Amino acid sequence: MSRSIAIIGGTGPAGTGLALRWARAGETVIIGSRDSARAEQTAEMIRQRVGANAQVSGMENSAACAASDLLVLTVPFEGQAALLKQLKPAIRAGSTLIDATVPLAASVGGRASRTLGVWQGSAAQQTAELVPKGASVVAAFQNVSADVLNGNLDDDVDCDVIVCSDDPNATQMAMELAVKIPRIRAIDGGKLENARIIEQITALLIGLNIRHKGHGGIRITGLPDAAYKSLTAQ
Amino acid sequence: MSRSIAIIGGTGPAGTGLALRWARAGETVIIGSRDSARAEQTAEMIRQRVGANAQVSGMENSAACAASDLLVLTVPFEGQAALLKQLKPAIRAGSTLIDATVPLAASVGGRASRTLGVWQGSAAQQTAELVPKGASVVAAFQNVSADVLNGNLDDDVDCDVIVCSDDPNATQMAMELAVKIPRIRAIDGGKLENARIIEQITALLIGLNIRHKGHGGIRITGLPDAAYKSLTAQ
Repeated sequence: MSRSIAIIGGTGPAGTGLALRWARAGETVIIGSRDSARAEQTAEMIRQRVGANAQVSGMENSAACAASDLLVLTVPFEGQAALLKQLKPAIRAGSTLIDATVPLAASVGGRASRTLGVWQGSAAQQTAELVPKGASVVAAFQNVSADVLNGNLDDDVDCDVIVCSDDPNATQMAMELAVKIPRIRAIDGGKLENARIIEQITALLIGLNIRHKGHGGIRITGLPDAAYKSLTAQ
Repeated sequence: MSRSIAIIGGTGPAGTGLALRWARAGETVIIGSRDSARAEQTAEMIRQRVGANAQVSGMENSAACAASDLLVLTVPFEGQAALLKQLKPAIRAGSTLIDATVPLAASVGGRASRTLGVWQGSAAQQTAELVPKGASVVAAFQNVSADVLNGNLDDDVDCDVIVCSDDPNATQMAMELAVKIPRIRAIDGGKLENARIIEQITALLIGLNIRHKGHGGIRITGLPDAAYKSLTAQ
């Protein structure tokens, strides 16, 4: 099968990091960017790191949306709403959009360890208002350290991905993508509205990283085995 | 030394669970309650579970405040502000108050997997407005499962405690208390304002517990060893 993953804003650290890991797992990845030349540069860098077999290409964001129905949004919050309005005509009916954005106060010149209040409750819920009817939004990957993703590709990623969506199929899709990355476990976090808490956790982790000089992630403990989806136990 | 820990609202599940674990660790614990007879009942139950050596007594809440300068607040959010106003004259100058409360929407008839917005930012920051001048507030223990604390006392507690305060001495004191409980690690989470995120995490964990039938906790990964205080590495 020829599913591809289009990463909107894929030239930033979070998008590039996920692209590296998915390309290494054998997925076909499209890097989307405002600037197709930058997207192609990033795709080339990924090929160099992952190997010649890596299935990676670069495109302008709306071409990337038109080329895939599995989209991952990794843009800074300050550009999120305007970009989604612009991309709306290009997003295919039935698309799944995985939103990894976080409303950090850094978006308006504040601290990355604080968040902004979003009227809808979370960046992901804002996204849900802006995608075309029939597209599904799922929130995931906000807490995974971009530094770790972009680091040594032989190093596992010591983090759980809590996945929130109102569409169970979209949750399932995001969980499957999460566990393509070794040692990541995916947990169904329930409805999209819960993304507001997951987004806050990113600000907490950034604060801990600054304070303790680390690359923080989270693990959820104490749930039954069936709650954790992982590479080894699917 | 004869330090005692007074647990305000100590007859509820969170307070009793912490009391059990600290009594077992050899700490002197005072159970506070509106009703001194209930406090004494809980103290007796703890002695029965922990053993005759357990140093536990029960008192009315304001007597408990007067008897100790290390207070732990484990009351439901709906009663928190009124209780603090009532206790204010009894809280000793120089006291440290560890706030473990969470503004769950259940406080106003909503869901325990959602939170209320608190004007000050968090339940702990509200508390900081209500204690006498010279008392220090530190937020901690919100994410530790009461069910696990009250369970088999031979079972470790698989959870990190993120400690937030504007007073480094108060942070230190809460971290020391946290690591009295086997396998809990304490992490300095920075300023008290960060408690708002830690409090949200409790609502997330409650939602995961309902969805997956577990007793969820959290671990922070990816920080350097020095960031984690534990029984084995202090």
